[in-house]
Amino acid sequence: MKKSPWHEECGVFGIYAPEKDVSRLTYYGLYALQHRGQESAGIAVANGQKIDTHKGMGLVAEVFNNDNLQTLKGDIAIGHVRYSTTGESSLVNAQPLVFRYLRGMLAIAHNGNLTNAAKLRQELGAGGSVFQSSTDSEIIVNLIAKHSQEPIEEALRHCQEELKGAYSLVVMTENKLIGVRDPHGVRPLCLGKLGEGWVLASESCALDTIDAEFVRDVEPGEIIVIDSEGVRSIERPKVNNRAHCIFEYVYFARPDSTIDDETVNLVRRELGCNLAREIKIDADIVIPVPDSGIAAAVGYAEVAGLPFVEGLMKNRYVGRTFIQPTQELRDLGVRLKLNPIKPILKNKRVIIIDDSIVRGTTSRRIVNMLRQAGVKEVHFLVASPPVLYPCYYGIDTSVRGELIAAQHPLEEIRQYIGADSLHYLSIEGLFKSVKRDAENFCAACFTGNYPIPIPSPEEATKYSLEG
Amino acid sequence: MKKSPWHEECGVFGIYAPEKDVSRLTYYGLYALQHRGQESAGIAVANGQKIDTHKGMGLVAEVFNNDNLQTLKGDIAIGHVRYSTTGESSLVNAQPLVFRYLRGMLAIAHNGNLTNAAKLRQELGAGGSVFQSSTDSEIIVNLIAKHSQEPIEEALRHCQEELKGAYSLVVMTENKLIGVRDPHGVRPLCLGKLGEGWVLASESCALDTIDAEFVRDVEPGEIIVIDSEGVRSIERPKVNNRAHCIFEYVYFARPDSTIDDETVNLVRRELGCNLAREIKIDADIVIPVPDSGIAAAVGYAEVAGLPFVEGLMKNRYVGRTFIQPTQELRDLGVRLKLNPIKPILKNKRVIIIDDSIVRGTTSRRIVNMLRQAGVKEVHFLVASPPVLYPCYYGIDTSVRGELIAAQHPLEEIRQYIGADSLHYLSIEGLFKSVKRDAENFCAACFTGNYPIPIPSPEEATKYSLEG
Amino acid sequence: MKKSPWHEECGVFGIYAPEKDVSRLTYYGLYALQHRGQESAGIAVANGQKIDTHKGMGLVAEVFNNDNLQTLKGDIAIGHVRYSTTGESSLVNAQPLVFRYLRGMLAIAHNGNLTNAAKLRQELGAGGSVFQSSTDSEIIVNLIAKHSQEPIEEALRHCQEELKGAYSLVVMTENKLIGVRDPHGVRPLCLGKLGEGWVLASESCALDTIDAEFVRDVEPGEIIVIDSEGVRSIERPKVNNRAHCIFEYVYFARPDSTIDDETVNLVRRELGCNLAREIKIDADIVIPVPDSGIAAAVGYAEVAGLPFVEGLMKNRYVGRTFIQPTQELRDLGVRLKLNPIKPILKNKRVIIIDDSIVRGTTSRRIVNMLRQAGVKEVHFLVASPPVLYPCYYGIDTSVRGELIAAQHPLEEIRQYIGADSLHYLSIEGLFKSVKRDAENFCAACFTGNYPIPIPSPEEATKYSLEG
Amino acid sequence: MKKSPWHEECGVFGIYAPEKDVSRLTYYGLYALQHRGQESAGIAVANGQKIDTHKGMGLVAEVFNNDNLQTLKGDIAIGHVRYSTTGESSLVNAQPLVFRYLRGMLAIAHNGNLTNAAKLRQELGAGGSVFQSSTDSEIIVNLIAKHSQEPIEEALRHCQEELKGAYSLVVMTENKLIGVRDPHGVRPLCLGKLGEGWVLASESCALDTIDAEFVRDVEPGEIIVIDSEGVRSIERPKVNNRAHCIFEYVYFARPDSTIDDETVNLVRRELGCNLAREIKIDADIVIPVPDSGIAAAVGYAEVAGLPFVEGLMKNRYVGRTFIQPTQELRDLGVRLKLNPIKPILKNKRVIIIDDSIVRGTTSRRIVNMLRQAGVKEVHFLVASPPVLYPCYYGIDTSVRGELIAAQHPLEEIRQYIGADSLHYLSIEGLFKSVKRDAENFCAACFTGNYPIPIPSPEEATKYSLEG
Repeated sequence: MKKSPWHEECGVFGIYAPEKDVSRLTYYGLYALQHRGQESAGIAVANGQKIDTHKGMGLVAEVFNNDNLQTLKGDIAIGHVRYSTTGESSLVNAQPLVFRYLRGMLAIAHNGNLTNAAKLRQELGAGGSVFQSSTDSEIIVNLIAKHSQEPIEEALRHCQEELKGAYSLVVMTENKLIGVRDPHGVRPLCLGKLGEGWVLASESCALDTIDAEFVRDVEPGEIIVIDSEGVRSIERPKVNNRAHCIFEYVYFARPDSTIDDETVNLVRRELGCNLAREIKIDADIVIPVPDSGIAAAVGYAEVAGLPFVEGLMKNRYVGRTFIQPTQELRDLGVRLKLNPIKPILKNKRVIIIDDSIVRGTTSRRIVNMLRQAGVKEVHFLVASPPVLYPCYYGIDTSVRGELIAAQHPLEEIRQYIGADSLHYLSIEGLFKSVKRDAENFCAACFTGNYPIPIPSPEEATKYSLEG
Repeated sequence: MKKSPWHEECGVFGIYAPEKDVSRLTYYGLYALQHRGQESAGIAVANGQKIDTHKGMGLVAEVFNNDNLQTLKGDIAIGHVRYSTTGESSLVNAQPLVFRYLRGMLAIAHNGNLTNAAKLRQELGAGGSVFQSSTDSEIIVNLIAKHSQEPIEEALRHCQEELKGAYSLVVMTENKLIGVRDPHGVRPLCLGKLGEGWVLASESCALDTIDAEFVRDVEPGEIIVIDSEGVRSIERPKVNNRAHCIFEYVYFARPDSTIDDETVNLVRRELGCNLAREIKIDADIVIPVPDSGIAAAVGYAEVAGLPFVEGLMKNRYVGRTFIQPTQELRDLGVRLKLNPIKPILKNKRVIIIDDSIVRGTTSRRIVNMLRQAGVKEVHFLVASPPVLYPCYYGIDTSVRGELIAAQHPLEEIRQYIGADSLHYLSIEGLFKSVKRDAENFCAACFTGNYPIPIPSPEEATKYSLEG
Repeated sequence: MKKSPWHEECGVFGIYAPEKDVSRLTYYGLYALQHRGQESAGIAVANGQKIDTHKGMGLVAEVFNNDNLQTLKGDIAIGHVRYSTTGESSLVNAQPLVFRYLRGMLAIAHNGNLTNAAKLRQELGAGGSVFQSSTDSEIIVNLIAKHSQEPIEEALRHCQEELKGAYSLVVMTENKLIGVRDPHGVRPLCLGKLGEGWVLASESCALDTIDAEFVRDVEPGEIIVIDSEGVRSIERPKVNNRAHCIFEYVYFARPDSTIDDETVNLVRRELGCNLAREIKIDADIVIPVPDSGIAAAVGYAEVAGLPFVEGLMKNRYVGRTFIQPTQELRDLGVRLKLNPIKPILKNKRVIIIDDSIVRGTTSRRIVNMLRQAGVKEVHFLVASPPVLYPCYYGIDTSVRGELIAAQHPLEEIRQYIGADSLHYLSIEGLFKSVKRDAENFCAACFTGNYPIPIPSPEEATKYSLEG
Repeated sequence: MKKSPWHEECGVFGIYAPEKDVSRLTYYGLYALQHRGQESAGIAVANGQKIDTHKGMGLVAEVFNNDNLQTLKGDIAIGHVRYSTTGESSLVNAQPLVFRYLRGMLAIAHNGNLTNAAKLRQELGAGGSVFQSSTDSEIIVNLIAKHSQEPIEEALRHCQEELKGAYSLVVMTENKLIGVRDPHGVRPLCLGKLGEGWVLASESCALDTIDAEFVRDVEPGEIIVIDSEGVRSIERPKVNNRAHCIFEYVYFARPDSTIDDETVNLVRRELGCNLAREIKIDADIVIPVPDSGIAAAVGYAEVAGLPFVEGLMKNRYVGRTFIQPTQELRDLGVRLKLNPIKPILKNKRVIIIDDSIVRGTTSRRIVNMLRQAGVKEVHFLVASPPVLYPCYYGIDTSVRGELIAAQHPLEEIRQYIGADSLHYLSIEGLFKSVKRDAENFCAACFTGNYPIPIPSPEEATKYSLEG
């Protein structure tokens, strides 16, 4: 199984609010989206004449300070946080990307993954385009510039015809804010209202943070233009089928966000409830893997009629500069992130619940920890189906690369992680946990049914920058 | 009511383990104690000949890196984290304090608060002592030096006679590690074993982190000496009464620690259970104030037979360099730390549970948040009694300074925070939640019964450095 | 008089030396060229497969450390230092510029200034090019990409036909190092040999620093290609006339460099000698404005038969983070950079020698300083003619913007700076100080004879990014 | 030959100027004294009530910024720069030292070296003193505290009786500035006037920098007290003999300073003149080792009637973070600090002049460099006598440790450095170069006549902190 060559997950934010402190509001908006990317952060601001920008490596709070925020004055702003992936991590890939082309200045921030990136890069290169980064954004930028004879709205419409894959974009000219969502609506993007101004964001939690009112999700294929005339939507291409990423609900999005009409925390709780309906186990307590398993564990405990207990304590002070223990110290038992609370666990039959299993190494470590704490039995329950297929639409499959469930049968995985039993939620249980029908979602990582054609191995190799 | 002039809460750690990487183990130990102090961190290492040290402002992970850790080579190490309080925050107050006196080198790390600090400072000054910091540690150091004709063990025994108040100390010479706890055992200190070596720590979670085995709590008044001969305990002064700080269980200590035979998480859950037994309310859901109210809310929900729900999402990325919103933005509704999940809360009758109320401003903000999210009723329940008296034994009363419960009757507080009802746990309920009898604890902040004499206002003024 | 819209002065370096530590050698080479630019520094390294790069704001020693240098492994490297100018100072303008185009990767570093930059930018934009910086380098890069169907050597040959102005370039592909000098040879570029390897540098002092042997200057219009086949020169366009910048000798280049057959220190000394032949003054001592006036002052003193004396002490510790005195403190007489040695100056008739006068403010301050130190007379002699015209070929005219000599007659300048007399070297004296004939040099800043057509004010405005 | 156990050279500054920005003026004063110490810098400010301080590692411009300077408000300030020596370099040794003792707060900054430090430390320790640093200043502080029953002026008078060695101190209480110089006046200290205020500084160049008027040198043994009553001098102990350090003139002090009536630059020039009178050589040019040899070379050239030429270029951008070349690169000829100007040196008979030779390694490297540049002959002349004895009074003998002249006869040294001839100035020539008689100076490093008793090897070992 080949993994996607381009793996990123990101958060985007945009605000049109003359007379408000747009750069600071973007700062807080990005901060609410920080879970979508911790590698780099950036803000660009337009003041009618030009676009200023500041980007840097690290968390929003590390990249920005009062001094550099104050240099970003204007009426419109867009921002971006980028996920940390090894190898591609550098400032040149930080967004928003700001550039000058025939019609003036433009800034762009992108969440998603193009499936025809290599091919577009090749075609644009043949036309004389140059690329300074490995981001899809720079491809989109050059594609827009190819259409520089047209107004930006039309250029984006034409770009939408050429771009394949998943993308939620916020684009900014000197005096317009534009939101674009791909025709399948894979990655989220929503619209909010702040006084007289307008906000675009990857998730509704960013609207909440700045007390903007949620208006609606941007429709698949929609182009929303916001300027001094107000908000207008450009006619969008006929959409065959929606394909909202279901993994956003399972793991990626923030629990307090509501995305395409589903509240993440409620979905997760429901995943736990359905898991309890499917998998019944005779046990004493239900504990979550903090923090991602909490909602499902609460749901499971409720349906199963078992006590919900915090059996593992998570240390919240781990930062990027933290010195990881050497293998020797790890062998000695140094454990930093999670600590089992022995008096709670000792001699108990424990059900432990996590959102998903990827490589299985963390699960194995946790089970071992519980055994050392003296549990009598440990039953590992996963509130989603096995991840069997890589994502080509923007979820990082470099950390999801060696998918244990794709390589090994259930019993081998159970033995590997060392649990007394191991159970996953069924595909049916997954779809029962959301309100809408299954055909509205992309669940390719679980099912292998890719709603947008993925590059053939030959193509991926042929056009790859790294091949 | 005058507040204590010296307000600090800290964590201490010590390890005697020749042939192990003691500085790195101390780093991980301090990291586990990070919740006890985020202002500064320091590690001192003894190698039989001399003591090296490194200290800095900030979190453990910010102060230390591979380079400076590698300069700290030796067989014994002690470490310290210090709580952030305004005004006194500077590197000169960071610990361990390392100094040279007649008998060689000595390092010391201190958690607690002396009640006769001003008087001792005055007396020592009259004898020619000089002070470079405002810490109690420097007083203890100079007191030890006054007894420099005696071996360190005896000097500490004599110091114990002169020191009044709360203190848990780790002391290190070139070749000994020594732990000292005050005669009432106010602040915690425990002993662990790591292979052939020994560990001292404020809380057992620091032992867990480095996989050391918990041996026992250091006894009130005990002096434990660890060197190449092994561990020995020096006869301790007759103890009239234990006075373990009950607030450690209510709020300060880490849930996974077991202190003086009580597991913190279990105490907190029991506080919630007892609260449910005392206060019955007709409601739809129970939600915690994250993270400190979670255990009590789980306990409450279980006893009350109501669903436990995560109704507030906490953003975990706030760091020290984060740009706080201006008052203007706060008025606009910018809220960063907590976000209510509206679809969960709307039209619900909500019981919200927190560990304690100090000034009431946070509670007020939370209730307001819930109202905006559309709750039908909000009942604010506190899993401890009202805080009525300041602490003189080392819990920071600068943030606990304006104690709302000491100034206003219950109904006024309820109106201030805007809840439909407000209830505290009773003193009896508090003591029912711990296993041992009430006379083993200091609960002065709730009851006003101070187990150790506190300085009179005149004394405090007379000797105060700042008067 | 309108000033040039693009004002930069920079230093470039390139090395082809498989099996040597090319990034570190580039570091030292750039360090030797640090006087040519202190705003930003960058190094790119090619290893046959790809190009890695690191850039940053500040001095070479600030931008690079062992960690980031060690990530730059390869056989070929190029480097760049950039001059600090207000307004355009940002990381996006730092060089080398590294990019990917149809034929692979390319890195480029540029010293000079294009006179048709605005026009090229416009034309390229119309063809769909996008620009992320305001540098000429990005124009050149896009121009190369337009010729991406051709091998790089031919592409550069065709670019040379379209580029107007002054440019010395080092270009690097995955396996080639290429040096390009404009057809007039305005900015310097020389070739050196290091063992089996080859070096290109703005000035010979960079060759000396790494002990490379000076081979020859790159010829005006020459394209030098260095790869595994060795060194070859591409036939260059017919050159009508050389136009080496004479200001490099007067002020800009390092005294120990030899550029186009003239050793800078010797030229400066000769400028002083010729000044002494032209201007004879009855005085007691000759003092330089350190450091730029030293060589001329030594030459003057020798010819005039007067003692050369260090009358002004320069403080060498001023760095970028230095807190400049407020106007109030400056009025109080706080002076940081230069201090007169009173016992040397008191009651003396002093000749003070500087390399040039631009705005006159520094000269005025120095004369005032000497007066306060008690000199009897002060004669200000300038070892070059008055600067009357702006430079369009890469010398920063933003600091040379308000040219006092272009605005005021000699007597007014003398009164302004407060000297008893003021004298400049003649144009004839200037040309007598170099070995070759006047027609080999560009002395447009002194004479107004621009060897390469400069943009008309309309053009400059029409195409300007900032207009 | 044993080297001194305590090796530091420092600069001190103090200002009493209510209503002036004393911290900023101290910043500029320290900046002028930066050559006396680059390891650490600190400023303490008194406002009548208390003393605030800020210290850090590095240059003045690195330690201070607008933010921390603005926290230092008051009427009086003292400052300190400390020399970089390996091993003892840490923040705990940075000065001023600020402390609280019986009578209030005190700050102290010290230049010099006590010869009875070990003995005092021992005695004070026996009385219960503790030491946190290895500085003499902390000894002085504890000695003052022993006399805390007396007013500070008397305490200092009594301390002066117990302190042996070289010391220039600035001391500050909440409302007084005090200057103290040891009875022999080894280290410099002078008094200046700034409007209604007063300034104390190690060298007059610091007065010049802030435009303070030089009043006079502080007398050996004098205690100067400055407060709201004005300036007064305390009767000083009978001085047997002055012993001003002659090495300050030869190398250490800034050329533009006038110390104890001798202008440093004039002394250095005169050293060169006397060298020319003693040593006559048939040569073509005279070149200095920049910067320290310039004044002497100018003097030599003038007397010898030979041309003074800059034959070596010094790169001025070397900072603390600069990556030094590996031995391998150094063997390859990488040379960073100095570059010979070949066209000037080739085939010349060169006289090169330096201020002194310590270990000979730099001289050897320079001669080798000149040979490679093609000189015909190189004559190395030293403008001071051979350094034969270590300094116990505050000049760093750790870098002056392996004194080549103390170990080898002249001819061996000549061979080692590789010169055609090597000559030193005579002791007589040295003393002829200053205005006052030899008995006013300490020239122990040249003569071995120590004016203050030095510790016997046994004593040094017995009391040494490091023994």
